[in-house]
Amino acid sequence: MTQVMMDRMSWPEFRDALKRNPTVFIPCGATEQHGPHLPLSVDCLLPTALCRDVAERVGGVVAPTLSFGYKSMPKSGGGPHFPGTLNLDAQTLISMVRDVIRELVRHGVKKICCVVGHYENQWIVTEGIDLAMRECGHTGLKVMRLEYWDFCTEDTIKTVFPDGFPGVALEHAAVMETSMMLHYYPDMVRLDLIPDNPPAQFPPYDIWPPHRDWVPSSGALTSAKGASAAKGKAMVEQYCRDIAAAVKKEFG
Amino acid sequence: MTQVMMDRMSWPEFRDALKRNPTVFIPCGATEQHGPHLPLSVDCLLPTALCRDVAERVGGVVAPTLSFGYKSMPKSGGGPHFPGTLNLDAQTLISMVRDVIRELVRHGVKKICCVVGHYENQWIVTEGIDLAMRECGHTGLKVMRLEYWDFCTEDTIKTVFPDGFPGVALEHAAVMETSMMLHYYPDMVRLDLIPDNPPAQFPPYDIWPPHRDWVPSSGALTSAKGASAAKGKAMVEQYCRDIAAAVKKEFG
Amino acid sequence: MTQVMMDRMSWPEFRDALKRNPTVFIPCGATEQHGPHLPLSVDCLLPTALCRDVAERVGGVVAPTLSFGYKSMPKSGGGPHFPGTLNLDAQTLISMVRDVIRELVRHGVKKICCVVGHYENQWIVTEGIDLAMRECGHTGLKVMRLEYWDFCTEDTIKTVFPDGFPGVALEHAAVMETSMMLHYYPDMVRLDLIPDNPPAQFPPYDIWPPHRDWVPSSGALTSAKGASAAKGKAMVEQYCRDIAAAVKKEFG
Amino acid sequence: MTQVMMDRMSWPEFRDALKRNPTVFIPCGATEQHGPHLPLSVDCLLPTALCRDVAERVGGVVAPTLSFGYKSMPKSGGGPHFPGTLNLDAQTLISMVRDVIRELVRHGVKKICCVVGHYENQWIVTEGIDLAMRECGHTGLKVMRLEYWDFCTEDTIKTVFPDGFPGVALEHAAVMETSMMLHYYPDMVRLDLIPDNPPAQFPPYDIWPPHRDWVPSSGALTSAKGASAAKGKAMVEQYCRDIAAAVKKEFG
Amino acid sequence: MTQVMMDRMSWPEFRDALKRNPTVFIPCGATEQHGPHLPLSVDCLLPTALCRDVAERVGGVVAPTLSFGYKSMPKSGGGPHFPGTLNLDAQTLISMVRDVIRELVRHGVKKICCVVGHYENQWIVTEGIDLAMRECGHTGLKVMRLEYWDFCTEDTIKTVFPDGFPGVALEHAAVMETSMMLHYYPDMVRLDLIPDNPPAQFPPYDIWPPHRDWVPSSGALTSAKGASAAKGKAMVEQYCRDIAAAVKKEFG
Amino acid sequence: MTQVMMDRMSWPEFRDALKRNPTVFIPCGATEQHGPHLPLSVDCLLPTALCRDVAERVGGVVAPTLSFGYKSMPKSGGGPHFPGTLNLDAQTLISMVRDVIRELVRHGVKKICCVVGHYENQWIVTEGIDLAMRECGHTGLKVMRLEYWDFCTEDTIKTVFPDGFPGVALEHAAVMETSMMLHYYPDMVRLDLIPDNPPAQFPPYDIWPPHRDWVPSSGALTSAKGASAAKGKAMVEQYCRDIAAAVKKEFG
Repeated sequence: MTQVMMDRMSWPEFRDALKRNPTVFIPCGATEQHGPHLPLSVDCLLPTALCRDVAERVGGVVAPTLSFGYKSMPKSGGGPHFPGTLNLDAQTLISMVRDVIRELVRHGVKKICCVVGHYENQWIVTEGIDLAMRECGHTGLKVMRLEYWDFCTEDTIKTVFPDGFPGVALEHAAVMETSMMLHYYPDMVRLDLIPDNPPAQFPPYDIWPPHRDWVPSSGALTSAKGASAAKGKAMVEQYCRDIAAAVKKEFG
Repeated sequence: MTQVMMDRMSWPEFRDALKRNPTVFIPCGATEQHGPHLPLSVDCLLPTALCRDVAERVGGVVAPTLSFGYKSMPKSGGGPHFPGTLNLDAQTLISMVRDVIRELVRHGVKKICCVVGHYENQWIVTEGIDLAMRECGHTGLKVMRLEYWDFCTEDTIKTVFPDGFPGVALEHAAVMETSMMLHYYPDMVRLDLIPDNPPAQFPPYDIWPPHRDWVPSSGALTSAKGASAAKGKAMVEQYCRDIAAAVKKEFG
Repeated sequence: MTQVMMDRMSWPEFRDALKRNPTVFIPCGATEQHGPHLPLSVDCLLPTALCRDVAERVGGVVAPTLSFGYKSMPKSGGGPHFPGTLNLDAQTLISMVRDVIRELVRHGVKKICCVVGHYENQWIVTEGIDLAMRECGHTGLKVMRLEYWDFCTEDTIKTVFPDGFPGVALEHAAVMETSMMLHYYPDMVRLDLIPDNPPAQFPPYDIWPPHRDWVPSSGALTSAKGASAAKGKAMVEQYCRDIAAAVKKEFG
Repeated sequence: MTQVMMDRMSWPEFRDALKRNPTVFIPCGATEQHGPHLPLSVDCLLPTALCRDVAERVGGVVAPTLSFGYKSMPKSGGGPHFPGTLNLDAQTLISMVRDVIRELVRHGVKKICCVVGHYENQWIVTEGIDLAMRECGHTGLKVMRLEYWDFCTEDTIKTVFPDGFPGVALEHAAVMETSMMLHYYPDMVRLDLIPDNPPAQFPPYDIWPPHRDWVPSSGALTSAKGASAAKGKAMVEQYCRDIAAAVKKEFG
Repeated sequence: MTQVMMDRMSWPEFRDALKRNPTVFIPCGATEQHGPHLPLSVDCLLPTALCRDVAERVGGVVAPTLSFGYKSMPKSGGGPHFPGTLNLDAQTLISMVRDVIRELVRHGVKKICCVVGHYENQWIVTEGIDLAMRECGHTGLKVMRLEYWDFCTEDTIKTVFPDGFPGVALEHAAVMETSMMLHYYPDMVRLDLIPDNPPAQFPPYDIWPPHRDWVPSSGALTSAKGASAAKGKAMVEQYCRDIAAAVKKEFG
Repeated sequence: MTQVMMDRMSWPEFRDALKRNPTVFIPCGATEQHGPHLPLSVDCLLPTALCRDVAERVGGVVAPTLSFGYKSMPKSGGGPHFPGTLNLDAQTLISMVRDVIRELVRHGVKKICCVVGHYENQWIVTEGIDLAMRECGHTGLKVMRLEYWDFCTEDTIKTVFPDGFPGVALEHAAVMETSMMLHYYPDMVRLDLIPDNPPAQFPPYDIWPPHRDWVPSSGALTSAKGASAAKGKAMVEQYCRDIAAAVKKEFG
């Protein structure tokens, strides 16, 4: 299999990859708590693995992962107080996204896909892309941005949640992420430590300073007890298939 | 009725209002297309009116409306290409939110509620709040941020959509916003121009440059034909009641 | 009369207005104390009304008002300590002006007139314009910036100050602003509360932290007792006539 | 005479000067055309010399001159098109002023006087001071900012303009600046090249791109023919006396 | 062995690590060409491995690697034109370093060591540290910054260059980096592709646009033919020993 | 001799100089302690004098000196704690360099040479140049950046250090700078105050907060006892000859 990971390529290998006008994928992650059973880098690991699998399907290249993300919020990531959650200011992440895109374009890249693995990144990555488009749009640059979970189909939902889908809102460090981790990085999941707290209940607003008692003390917004590698595999396969199809549709 | 709108107060009136330790509401709007039947300022007008009504219930004050918002996206606001949609860079809006909060705090305000009327503002306003908290948090400052539509209850949904709720995602310039405009500002709604396009269909990603053909040419993401002032009144009353309750719960 | 206020237009109305290559006016206001007899929004209300009147004369459009301005100084606006005076950092206002101009240009606007209603805004708005010109100047963009009071003629001075003109320096919340408010927004003027303090005396320098005792406790730098709606009308008519003439001369 | 110029001091000399809690003067200049008879550095040279003279009177210290200023405008400095006029962006000058003040405060300075020698600097220097106060104000820091020409008395006006004062607005590269240069730096004035153009006539607005034909081709906004070293001496002596008095009044 | 890599820890593991008041190491890398025989991530891989080894010696923790660095210069990294060299703007890297330190401090970290693996990062990382100290210095925070190659002893030089040391200036993708890669990541070195170009010759200045012909076409500034895993091992052991000693000396 | 110092030129003189397509030199200095025997402005005075001498050889122009530099570090400049050392934030100096270059380019300058006189400036000036190239590179702009001491030849070393060269690292306020000051500005050197401390010893890392005891209390990193005007003359003549040659080679 051709090497698709840019950080493992030498410069002549990257130069050769550029000749086929590849889509370059940028995994947009975070360093953020994911419960007692998962490492702080889940939001980096999952989009990086997905990018690799999709890049292999479409002849793409995967840029180095953005390892730090935008600020964790209580209702989606547990909030900033969990030890190990390292949050960037918006302007820092915006600049990082803009710079990486600008540099790829400088080397001749025309097709870029930002794959977001951390919910809170979405709008900040959007601004980085928009600023890069303002600078580079005249070059014919095209950019996609996607949150991989938005590709989840009804069928996959049924496979992962045979007893009914509680909704995506609480899926932080829960069944979906844990299943994908079990598929991709089983050694990094501590099955014995999966918490079994009931789903968090949140009001329809955010507040500063955050109320820690809104968030289960485990950091998992609902239980990951139903996770399995098989579910992870089903998710990953469907996501990769459909993301690859979207990339091909948009970028040819 | 006491004047709650800060822009209509003299400075001694504002000084006197400060003595009751009021919650100050900041309507966070936008200048953005809302179909052929609504003005460009819908996202300013609605949160401003809601803030006024809630402020009257809780003894609060309404700061001047932020009239420009973050960048309109095709899937939520139709996108930047509609004439009249004026988008701020993220850093500009972040700074605006931070500065306004910092200044209110300088005058002794301890309780601030940012009421977002434009979907795309959410994360950018969040960063402005977070930066203000970093500067001013030691003063005992508390800040809420809410998107008013997140307060919509099941009962209200049933009232507004007796034939079934198509989901909030396409509610741009559609039944909900148009009904609220009919309630608050009936003179600004051109009933004869309400478009009747079918709901937009969007893929699970964003792309730059945007595809204009994703968005109905009217700018309304789905039809507003079912709108009525009565529905608007039902929404407004429930929203105000519940937002006021949340403010009282959090800020006392 | 055609609608000239952009915030009241729908997007098709704004699109149609663009077809006549209109001058777009941007009222550059502030939220700042204006004595006990005037609201905090005087510096927004007056340039907005003037822009509307001029736009109607020249076939222009009025963009949403910039409601927050640069920092109030003791010698021109009373200074930051008056409750309700909300000051933006220079960079925030610069970015706001630049963004709004850039966005108007994106929609095809070629002629923009920034009408400053708050003395302290002048140089900060200048920088916003200059940065926008750097980005957009190649498009043929032309921008005017004016402080409306600079259009005051000798004749108008004699009309407003029949007993002799004390000079423009102290005209904050005084005869000129109060008269224009009485003309445009009589309901917002509390005639009974007009202060009668003698003119402030200022040394030829500024100092930080500001000396509060330099500024009359009313916030009016001199008395507004001589104000009248008739004087306001005379001022407004002369200003609108001459600003319209300047716009026509420069922009055709 | 004690050395007051910081750039000529060694660090132990500056350390010793700090022991007397001195006022530190920051000359805020520019590199800008001043007609064919004066060098590009007039706006640096004059405030630096005045600062030196005042510092000698009050036991102060003069920091290195800020050699670059804010953007030259046609109506006050002739505008950007004259060769040799080098303009800073506002943010650059703001940061420079803030950093220099912050650093002086770090060494224990409590009293700073920014002496502006370039009209366009005024508001930009103001913002730099304000940001420094926000950071350092808790240390007891006091800052003055003055434009030296604002200290000109009626008597001095009569001395310099025995035939009547045409007003300060056109005094760029004209009688006042040229006289002061003749006093302080006679070798740098080319008397034979003093232009004799009539006073410029400006409308009450600014425009971008600037109209070069508003500005006399010499760059002097009115003639400097009446300049003399004696007038310069009269101005300098009065300015220094009164600035020193103001500094003593405010800073003790 | 205890896990020292933060990205592999769960949040309770990181919380527990914090209890021993650990030094947190931040590997400051880059994505930059390193000749045809090494991957683009050498400047990430080497400091990360060194940090891990030192952290294991001193009971520290290794934060996620900063994968993007400051701009590659021809004389130290070959320059920006090599495909795959992705350069950040200074402000972006400054903000990244500042944010990561600020966040670690928020969780209670008091001792941070930035280990630079990319020559051009040095001064930019310095500014990030300095800004973080300004914000967080009052917490008792201490920060070291080191370029690992500066720890190289005379003895190690003799071991690595038995025929004489050509100087550190050209050691990009050359004997030292290649030897360390052979020690740590032998699978990533393509021995068959090690170039054998003579040492580059550079003048004592930099120039923009860069002269590509200053730089050997391989991207290696001198030959890596003398590299070996044994030399890498010798370097690594000495570096780790001495860096650990420095950390213990400074941080206890 | 033609005037080469821009600050002494009138605008018509600068205009005329532009006609010969001159190289414009920007002396990049600092305000920083240089021991008890030298003034705080050494890092401004030396590059300015060198620029003047080189400009006279090559028909160039010298722009006003940048008087403030990047942050002094203990191991190269003694560190921030010496009274009188005034450090700029990186972003401030970056913006200053970018703005000055942009403005020179606006007037038609095509060839710019930044002559760094303060060690710590190097990478920050580099970023300013790079940002200016991004904005102005399409105009054919070429920029050099050099630290003048890097031009020192072996022969000059032997002349200055007949007893052996201790290395450039400690040459702050030592033999080389003091000799050049004795050549150019003998009145500013206090020979009687030259310290005679032994060379400083530094570890291979930096630390914050800085250890003051790393730095000799005089501020001179090693003794300047061997300095002489004759040595300074030898250095200056060789530097100017070779810098002029480099400029001619690159810029024609």
